[in-house]
Amino acid sequence: MTEPKKLAIIVHSNTLDKLYPILFLASTGGAMDMEVNLFFTFWGMNAIKKGGLDSAALPGLMRIGTGMMKRKIKNTKVPTLTKLLEMARMTDQVKLYACSTTMELMDISKDELIPEVDGIVGAASFLSIAQDADVQLFI
Amino acid sequence: MTEPKKLAIIVHSNTLDKLYPILFLASTGGAMDMEVNLFFTFWGMNAIKKGGLDSAALPGLMRIGTGMMKRKIKNTKVPTLTKLLEMARMTDQVKLYACSTTMELMDISKDELIPEVDGIVGAASFLSIAQDADVQLFI
Amino acid sequence: MTEPKKLAIIVHSNTLDKLYPILFLASTGGAMDMEVNLFFTFWGMNAIKKGGLDSAALPGLMRIGTGMMKRKIKNTKVPTLTKLLEMARMTDQVKLYACSTTMELMDISKDELIPEVDGIVGAASFLSIAQDADVQLFI
Repeated sequence: MTEPKKLAIIVHSNTLDKLYPILFLASTGGAMDMEVNLFFTFWGMNAIKKGGLDSAALPGLMRIGTGMMKRKIKNTKVPTLTKLLEMARMTDQVKLYACSTTMELMDISKDELIPEVDGIVGAASFLSIAQDADVQLFI
Repeated sequence: MTEPKKLAIIVHSNTLDKLYPILFLASTGGAMDMEVNLFFTFWGMNAIKKGGLDSAALPGLMRIGTGMMKRKIKNTKVPTLTKLLEMARMTDQVKLYACSTTMELMDISKDELIPEVDGIVGAASFLSIAQDADVQLFI
Repeated sequence: MTEPKKLAIIVHSNTLDKLYPILFLASTGGAMDMEVNLFFTFWGMNAIKKGGLDSAALPGLMRIGTGMMKRKIKNTKVPTLTKLLEMARMTDQVKLYACSTTMELMDISKDELIPEVDGIVGAASFLSIAQDADVQLFI
């Protein structure tokens, strides 16, 4: 039996255009039996706050195009971010970690996070996993 | 004989400041006999639409500085993006892939893409290549 | 004795929100005895110009929140960027490289860079190191 392939992503962003590739890679990786680890830090922390995925918007000045983009996404029958996370979790291969330093810095309590979060960890924990991962990305 | 080293880049951006490192890495990697795979997704899709490289600008509020940056690039004798892509392709080591979901979402047809595009693929195809690549980047 | 793990980061950004993860990963990686290589390119070059780390701000329209973020950082006793770089360097495991093309393009002389910079290199040097690194990130 071969060792499963591992994917580690630092999720630094919480904009719609970045969360889609992140959750597509996570759900697809999980479906391919890869071990997927998502580390949410800085702005990315908003994505794992309750209601965070629903309120994700396009970045900067493009923010005003968010509604139009969401309608296109719906019309194309692309899943919502919340649905994609659900699909990712159903594979049992996708773990979510929150960055401890960001939580302290942004004064976020554990209660504010969605229940899917598997742990609150620091940079050393991420590097320990990333250094043995086959794919590492900062998004 | 040793296995060639592999580089896989997810091209998410279409701004001048990101396309330069992407195409510098691609052309340099190709010249070093690395197998280079570029996956264009979301905004990055604009870079492989006909005329897309020529119209790339600096991001957000910096957009107004694009003309000045392009003059500096010309004066420093740094190749244009189009020239860099040509140099990359001449190595016969650099493959370009378009993201199928983005094409559907943004209603882009195959005819709108430059002829250098080698294929239209999904997230699973990227992960299959990336998990055996030596270097993976999201830009 | 096992080979030390290697981390290679392309530092493309010079905003506060990106330089923190970069220098946290560098100092933590160094403390874990990883070999850390930081390649500063494009906007990231500002981070290794004298005084550059002190003047780093939040990106785009969020720039106005920079002072508030810095006060939070101070109140949470998170080290400054300058202190983090110092901690990273004290591990003797963290090397800093400046991108030669960017220096030419932005007309930056060696004298303008902080003395911690270990060398001025091109894309080929980065790829040579990255292709044997265990973790590669573009930030």
